[in-house]
Formats: sequence, C-alpha cells, structure tokens
Amino acid sequence: MIYLDNAATSYPKPDSVKKEVLNAFDNLGGNPGRSSHHPAIAASVKIFEARNKIAHIFNSLPQNIVFTYNTTYALNIAIKSSYIYGSHVLISDLEHNSVLRPVASVTGNSFAGYNMFDSYIEYGPDERRHKVITSIRTKLRPLTKTIVCAARSNITGTSMPIREIGHFCRENDILFIVDAAQSAGYDDIDIERDYIDALCVPGHKGLYGPAGTGFIAFSQHAVSSGRISTFIEGGSGVASLDIGMPIDLPEKLEAGTLNVAGIAGLVSGIDHITDIGIGKIKKHEQDLVRHAYMALSFNKKIKFYGYSPDSPILLFNVIGTEPEDTAALLSQNDICVRAGYHCAPIAHKRFSTPSGGAVRMSVGYTNTLNEIERFVECVNKI
Amino acid sequence: MIYLDNAATSYPKPDSVKKEVLNAFDNLGGNPGRSSHHPAIAASVKIFEARNKIAHIFNSLPQNIVFTYNTTYALNIAIKSSYIYGSHVLISDLEHNSVLRPVASVTGNSFAGYNMFDSYIEYGPDERRHKVITSIRTKLRPLTKTIVCAARSNITGTSMPIREIGHFCRENDILFIVDAAQSAGYDDIDIERDYIDALCVPGHKGLYGPAGTGFIAFSQHAVSSGRISTFIEGGSGVASLDIGMPIDLPEKLEAGTLNVAGIAGLVSGIDHITDIGIGKIKKHEQDLVRHAYMALSFNKKIKFYGYSPDSPILLFNVIGTEPEDTAALLSQNDICVRAGYHCAPIAHKRFSTPSGGAVRMSVGYTNTLNEIERFVECVNKI
Repeated sequence: MIYLDNAATSYPKPDSVKKEVLNAFDNLGGNPGRSSHHPAIAASVKIFEARNKIAHIFNSLPQNIVFTYNTTYALNIAIKSSYIYGSHVLISDLEHNSVLRPVASVTGNSFAGYNMFDSYIEYGPDERRHKVITSIRTKLRPLTKTIVCAARSNITGTSMPIREIGHFCRENDILFIVDAAQSAGYDDIDIERDYIDALCVPGHKGLYGPAGTGFIAFSQHAVSSGRISTFIEGGSGVASLDIGMPIDLPEKLEAGTLNVAGIAGLVSGIDHITDIGIGKIKKHEQDLVRHAYMALSFNKKIKFYGYSPDSPILLFNVIGTEPEDTAALLSQNDICVRAGYHCAPIAHKRFSTPSGGAVRMSVGYTNTLNEIERFVECVNKI
Repeated sequence: MIYLDNAATSYPKPDSVKKEVLNAFDNLGGNPGRSSHHPAIAASVKIFEARNKIAHIFNSLPQNIVFTYNTTYALNIAIKSSYIYGSHVLISDLEHNSVLRPVASVTGNSFAGYNMFDSYIEYGPDERRHKVITSIRTKLRPLTKTIVCAARSNITGTSMPIREIGHFCRENDILFIVDAAQSAGYDDIDIERDYIDALCVPGHKGLYGPAGTGFIAFSQHAVSSGRISTFIEGGSGVASLDIGMPIDLPEKLEAGTLNVAGIAGLVSGIDHITDIGIGKIKKHEQDLVRHAYMALSFNKKIKFYGYSPDSPILLFNVIGTEPEDTAALLSQNDICVRAGYHCAPIAHKRFSTPSGGAVRMSVGYTNTLNEIERFVECVNKI
C-alpha cells in the first residue's frame, strides 16, 4: 500500500509512538492531576514532559499549552474563548471549515460579522507578503479584533505570510490565531518571532502522534491580554471548591480527563521528528511532491491547482475523469489519496476547482521516490 | 500495587483493549469519513461498530451516539447545545464540577439561572424515589427546561432515582441529561426505559477503554425535540460545501478527526465487560466494598460518609488524620486511593465532610478480596 493521504492523518506512526502508548497503559495508568499515588503522578509527569517539548519546538511556555481533542477543537476553543461580543473577525480565503464554521457561528448574531482577505494565490510567497497585508488593510473594520489564518492551505499546501500578518496584528491590537494543521512538524514555527497568539496544532499529522490529540500553544501576549475566557467547564484537579474554572492556563481551558496514552505517544512522535530534524523532513517531502509534479507535467491531461515548490501537497485532476473516480482507480492500485472538497469549500473556490473538487495527494516522511514513481505511473494510466 | 482509584480511571485495562489500540495504528490508519481508500474505510467501519455496540448496551441508536474527548466534554456539549436562552436548569446537590460549572456558566447571564434539588442522601433508595421528585417539584420554575443529574455520586457511589426523574421530565417537557461517569458499565441503563435524553459516558472508567474517549447517547426524543444546536463547528467529512454543520447527528456534533485508536480500544473494552456481564461486575465490586465497609466498621476511628450497599465506592476519613495524609500513608504501602474534594465540592458539603474532604477508595472488576483485606489492614494501622 502506498499511503499519500498524510494531510488527513499521517501513516504509518513510528514504532516508538506505538510502544509509548502501550507503556502508558501499563505504567501511566492513573488520572493526571487527580490523585497523588504513583500511577497518577507518573501520568502527570508525562503530561508535563509533553507541555515542555511542545513549548520548546514552538517557543511557547509549558503552562500555555492547552491539550484538546483535535485541531478543530483547538480552533473552536481559541476562536470562541477569545471572541469579543460584537467584534469583527478576518479570515483568509483559503480556510478549512474548522476555521470558517466556528467563525461564522460565533459572529452569526453580531453586528459586524466576519470577512475574508485575499491570499493572492496567483503570486509567489515573496510578492504575496505585501499584497496580503494590503488586502487585510482594505478589509479591516474598526471592530476587527481577531484574524484567523492557516499557515498552509490544506488542499494545496500554499503557505501564507504568517510572520507579516502576525506583526500587523500585534501593531493593531488584533489577536492572531493560526491553524497549523498542515504546517506543524513541517515548517519552522516560532510563536514569539511570528507574533502568533494561539497556534492550533494536530497531534496526529506532522507530529506523528495518535489521533485524539491536539493542542493550542498560546503566546504570553494572548494570556496577558485578558481575552481568554473559559469554554469547557468541569473538574481540573485544582481549585475544586470554586464555582468557576481556575484562572490560570492550562487548567482554565482543560477540563476533564486528558488523553494520557495519546499524549504519551505524541511525546514520542515529537522526539521522532526532532531526531530526524524538521528541515530534513520538509526537504524530503517537498522533493517528493516536486518530483511528482514534474513527472506529471508532461501529461497534458493533468490539471494542477496552486502548486508551489515548497509544498508537501499536490492538488490535481485528470481532465475528463471525476476526482472521486481518479481516487477510486488509484485505490484499486493500493494508492491512498483523497478526492472531493477536503472540508475546504472556500479554498476550492479560490483555486477554481470544478464541481466535485479535486484529487489531493499528500506525502509523509516515510514515502519514497519509488512510491511516487508508482503513483505517477498509475495517474498516467488513467 | 493495589489500585483502588477506579472512579478516577479504571486500571488495568484489559489486554484485548491494548491489542486493539495497536491494531488500530497498523490497520485503521486512515481518517474515518474523510477518504475512500482502504485504511480510511477500515477506520470508518470500526467507528460504526463502536456506535452500534454503544447503542446496543444503552438502547440508543447508532446515529445518536456522539463521540467526545471525555465525559466533561460530553456534559458541556449536552448542556450547552440544548440550552434555551433564559431558561432555568435544575441539578442535584450531588453534582460533580463537570455539571455544576457548565450549568453555572451557561445560565450565568440569564434571568432565571439554576438551582439544586435535594438528593435526600439520608434515606435509602426506595424512600428517595418519592422524596427526590417532591423536591424537584418544589424547586421547579416556569422556565425550567433542563434537569442534569448524576446516576451515581462520584464521591460515595450513591445512586439517584434516574427512571423516576426521567419520567417526571418527559411529562413536563424537560430535557433530562444524565452524568453516567460512575454508572456506565456498572448499572443497567436503558435510555428509553429510563427516559434519558442525553447520557454522558466516559470511555475510560467502567467501559475499560482508553482515556481520550467519551460519548453522548441521545434519545430519539431529544433529537426530535429540535433543541440540539451545534457546539463545536468544523469539518465532518460530509456536506463540506455548507457553511453550517450537517443537520443530522452524529456529524452535527462531531467535528474534526476522531480518536480512532481510542475508540477501537473502547470497542474491546465494551466487549470485555459484556462478556463478563455487567450484573456480575456490579455484584463483585459491591461485594468488595461491602467487605471493606464491614471490616472497617469495627474501627471506631473510621468515619464513613454516605455508604450504600450497592456502591463500588467507599468514602471515609481516619479521625484525627488529614485525608491527604491517609492517602499518602496508603500510597507508601502501594495502595492507590484519592483524597480531597474529588472535583465535587457540593457533594462533599452535602455529605458534611470536613475541611480537606475525605478519602475515596473505588474498586474495579480485577480487584480481589485479598487486596481489600490488605487495604483494611493498612487503614487500621493508621
């Protein structure tokens, strides 16, 4: 089987991740923060190790890491817990439904609502830097208090000028929330350098942890802003006697039992990618996609959408074949890709894909050049 | 090690659960509902198997099972997605912070707020049946639209007359939400028979699945009521082109990637307890707790709180010793219990525990009489 659907979830998981999940069942069997006996303490120590490692790679602080079920929950919590009633939210025109829908929902009954700025996909990253900021200035309203933006599109891997947007936000008293679903574990992200207030990250994609793990890495600036309210309330293991949630992160936003085994696996996933080196992973993956793009470019029946040379994702159609059919034909050859709209209808519209969307292939670090050649061969046959 | 903290999380997990989690990493590696290739389909099939098995044991329908991160998320989603703005919520005086805090939060800015009815803990279950309903009638307001109640207290295991409360709710157009954190996998629960509209369940306690799993089992009555709005919005793998979430459960309330390996493990946990038989589990566990209670009753320095003979939990203090110190001394003897307030301050108040709370021992199916005798011996030594 050739797995080229890593933008949905990475596969296979490293052996060390599986081993650590099993170890957690046996040796971290308590409920972290809930008791003071050995298996509960051991679980707490592992959770703290996870906060530390995550804080280290994104330049956040351990106490500002909030664990969630997945990136969608991270985005919902970041967007809704910081929303100022009646304010306006700006998002890019490349966003996934996990940004569009909570933003539409939270602003739905308000005066100002939300709007989209232009990603200028037709330009390269260098030109885009200035143009995107210009577009944001155009769309800005007096009550714009939040900007939410994917670091990379989930359908094409197109990157956004995160640092420039972050700098603009910081200068204009706007909270900056970044969807790093396709970027974490692939790009170099530093929330302080890039002025990111809330980085929303999946555990099960580029960090190679299990599904059921995700987190928000908050900046100290966001924490100090006083804008972060509670969102899910319940037991946190501390300050049980209060009727409100604890006032400090992470407990303020983390209620109920954490996914201990999943987070333990995530620690091993992070160790795995830092051992390899994120830069090396990026180079390998973009080389594979570039190879597929070059090889398929000779085929006049292939239409590409928004390819960029630094992307781990290739979006295309075989002219005259429905995307679902292309994916099914590849699946018959044991090649896994995803066809359709990829939960990102506004991005598909922006890239002008036809009705039915397009076919997305997305690589991981374990994919090989041979696999890509087999993929190219199969697509050419269709 | 003698693990007597099963009310926090069950330990050890059955070998079949661990095996299934590993199998999921290898053979269910896709993102369910997101693609049509083999590993994604295999993951979808497993998730559907989970919905089916859960629906079967609680007499719900597969499509009305909504997966969540944990019980706290399940309760937050059930309470908040069904809340009618300005309405009044009734809860029992035994609730965990995972009920009290979201109810307080959601009603915080409304006219009517929330109130507590009396659990009549000083009476046995038979007398309590009528008295609790009388208390609910007394506390009812014209705008009471929701009642939330634990099936069993998390600190004493005291059961509540769920079926009678459910019947009262159905007759009075009130949505009935049940916290089954300590009851699922121990009591016989039938959401149709018991008139439960939303049963909130942990995967990692009595069902012996991994942490990071939980769910809501909705009644068809709740679904048809039109009261369930979306709460977390994002991609669901279906109806990607709409700006709102899908209108049908479970997708309406399930956004983002599910915890596939965790849910796969949960399926094995459910198989495990149904193979043994929930009735047999209950008998074994209550026998163990009864044994501990009887044996410790001879010790005049032990004070019990709210012991009932059908409970898997024993709450006590050693007079003259702080609860935390008792737990620490037991921990030194490799016995795991939990001291403090157990995230349930109102229940502690109701049972009149002193400052510092009390010590909770809670058994699981793998605990033995020998272990209980060793526990009794250690407590007697303190």
